[in-house]
Amino acid sequence: MNYFSSDFKLGILGGGQLGKMLLTETRKFDIQTLVLDPNEEAPSRFGCNNFYKGSLMDFDTVYQFGKMVHLLTIEIENVNLDALDKLEEEGLPIFPSPKTLRLIQNKGKQKDLYIQNGIPTSKHLRFVGLDDLRNSISKDELDFPFVWKSAEFGYDGNGVKICRSAIDLMKLPDVECIAEELIPFKNELAVIVARSFSGEIKTYPVVEMEFHPEANQVEYVICPARINESVAQKAQEIALKVSETFNHVGLLAVEMFQTEDDEILVNEVAPRPHNSGHYSIEASYTSQFENHLRAILNLPLGSTDSKVAGIMVNLVGEEGYEGPVYYENIGQIMAIDGVTPHIYGKRETRPFRKMGHVTIVNEDMTIARQIAQEVKNSIRVISYQ
Amino acid sequence: MNYFSSDFKLGILGGGQLGKMLLTETRKFDIQTLVLDPNEEAPSRFGCNNFYKGSLMDFDTVYQFGKMVHLLTIEIENVNLDALDKLEEEGLPIFPSPKTLRLIQNKGKQKDLYIQNGIPTSKHLRFVGLDDLRNSISKDELDFPFVWKSAEFGYDGNGVKICRSAIDLMKLPDVECIAEELIPFKNELAVIVARSFSGEIKTYPVVEMEFHPEANQVEYVICPARINESVAQKAQEIALKVSETFNHVGLLAVEMFQTEDDEILVNEVAPRPHNSGHYSIEASYTSQFENHLRAILNLPLGSTDSKVAGIMVNLVGEEGYEGPVYYENIGQIMAIDGVTPHIYGKRETRPFRKMGHVTIVNEDMTIARQIAQEVKNSIRVISYQ
Repeated sequence: MNYFSSDFKLGILGGGQLGKMLLTETRKFDIQTLVLDPNEEAPSRFGCNNFYKGSLMDFDTVYQFGKMVHLLTIEIENVNLDALDKLEEEGLPIFPSPKTLRLIQNKGKQKDLYIQNGIPTSKHLRFVGLDDLRNSISKDELDFPFVWKSAEFGYDGNGVKICRSAIDLMKLPDVECIAEELIPFKNELAVIVARSFSGEIKTYPVVEMEFHPEANQVEYVICPARINESVAQKAQEIALKVSETFNHVGLLAVEMFQTEDDEILVNEVAPRPHNSGHYSIEASYTSQFENHLRAILNLPLGSTDSKVAGIMVNLVGEEGYEGPVYYENIGQIMAIDGVTPHIYGKRETRPFRKMGHVTIVNEDMTIARQIAQEVKNSIRVISYQ
Repeated sequence: MNYFSSDFKLGILGGGQLGKMLLTETRKFDIQTLVLDPNEEAPSRFGCNNFYKGSLMDFDTVYQFGKMVHLLTIEIENVNLDALDKLEEEGLPIFPSPKTLRLIQNKGKQKDLYIQNGIPTSKHLRFVGLDDLRNSISKDELDFPFVWKSAEFGYDGNGVKICRSAIDLMKLPDVECIAEELIPFKNELAVIVARSFSGEIKTYPVVEMEFHPEANQVEYVICPARINESVAQKAQEIALKVSETFNHVGLLAVEMFQTEDDEILVNEVAPRPHNSGHYSIEASYTSQFENHLRAILNLPLGSTDSKVAGIMVNLVGEEGYEGPVYYENIGQIMAIDGVTPHIYGKRETRPFRKMGHVTIVNEDMTIARQIAQEVKNSIRVISYQ
């Protein structure tokens, strides 16, 4: 297939920052793109060939969109899967496949799959709703503390809650959910796996994540993770196994816990470019976005090695500010060597909203880490109104 | 000034591949852009906020375009300078300045400036037209061989001719021109200088260029140039002096000859991102496009150091092919580690048309050079029609 400056059309469901960064690569290769997003101010409205405003959850909208393209991918999981099933049935290649998305959209099914395939993960129980969960507690099948997760539509920490006592249950919504064993862990790790349609497969180095204690959003992503080589190797092997279990095409970001005794437990996956791979734009030979594109187009995968150490700092809206965004001290951080801000293009900030990220690269990880701290302490995402 | 996700509007005159790669950076920073280009199929029609079709040489078109923006830059030198003069007079910041563009648009004036400022360059004579030049030859003021250059509007080898005898004169157009001493040289070098409005200045490493013998277009750009440290230092010092002489704001690409006895002679300059800096997208801490943007917005300049060795191969249309483009063997070269194609987005190829480039990066320059040769021997820009 000829993709470059041709009539080939790639459809992207979702027009957020992941789509925007993917469009940088489609432009680089001059591949025609159509983007669908409900928000007419979506970050991906520029850089695509055609932008369509419409619901990602509406059958007809997604189906009609799919009929206009030669291949369909997603930058967000929550899309109408019935429309994708029908499009796939009618012969449209869709990566990741609706089958994979259906498994991943439901955290209960996802966990079951890991257990079935011998992939290490924390113990869990599935519940149809809150009453079901309460019953389980009253029957002593489930003990505090545990991690409650909404089975569907969780995003960026919404839909996750550590429950330590009955009081915590009171704030939970009555939805299908799972309860997971609360695992004390040393590190949260992630491995991004790229797998093409022909089965070529490559893993990015293991990254290490630090979370904001309140917002439950990633604060630093550090590549390579500062862990033992044997632990890193184990994490990569498990990630490969997860990708093969899903028979995944495209990128799969596998989030994992490193336990106190150096076991690796799979937490959850994202079937697309991922926040934990943003460092790759500056640090890697091939960015995660370029490799996602290569994988779904069945082009050879690019090298996932790093040129230099990379650290990513998320730019999220400061608490107490809501309105037109202002990036305080952005000039100050840009004066530091190896510092690159990425501004997603959202006009309005609000507390904890993901507004951008900053990548810090350096030959020396220790220096990169110091600079990352400096960046974090300097820049603030605020509003004057 | 707040540029990021704000109401600030940057105008770009010209919508070719340089503009397209600059837009990657404006998108990364979410800076609003307006682009003017005569071709509605211009590579920059995507990725900007608003694209306007119109002549770059028409006073009213350029003037009206300028009235819509807060700052104006160019990606091609041949624009209506009277309109820029008027806009500047009315307070619009324009980088590079119309004064610099006026000097650079005329190769005779450019050469005179070098002589006046003690910048080493080959000997030259200026002529108002062909008769004037013939007179000079008949009076023995000018001897064969020499390099004839059209004073204005030369691009990619058009407007340059080596004249070895009277026969060569017969094909020349009757335009204002210069005749330069034909210098035997070891290397063609280039240094890109970034200088911001506040006077902060940085040079990229010296690159080495190899030209296609017939098309007079760059075939390989190699960074860093494989030359002595002392020669490299001299080249960078001279480039800095040229930038200061022009009081330049933005990027200035300084093309130079390294003579047989290791003298550096300035050939000509381009007041914008340049083909010789494309390698920087993959190899440098900060790409030339990002630094052009930082410079004109008076933001701190980014590091111009390289992470790895970089080589750039131009993708030009094969002789004998004209029509819808097809990139033969592009998949084959993408299978090699560190190889990144950039496709400019021109639907039609024709002989020697610049259609894209490929960057090869590697920690080891020798390996990079071998891969570059392999890339050059594999990919062909052809058409099936």
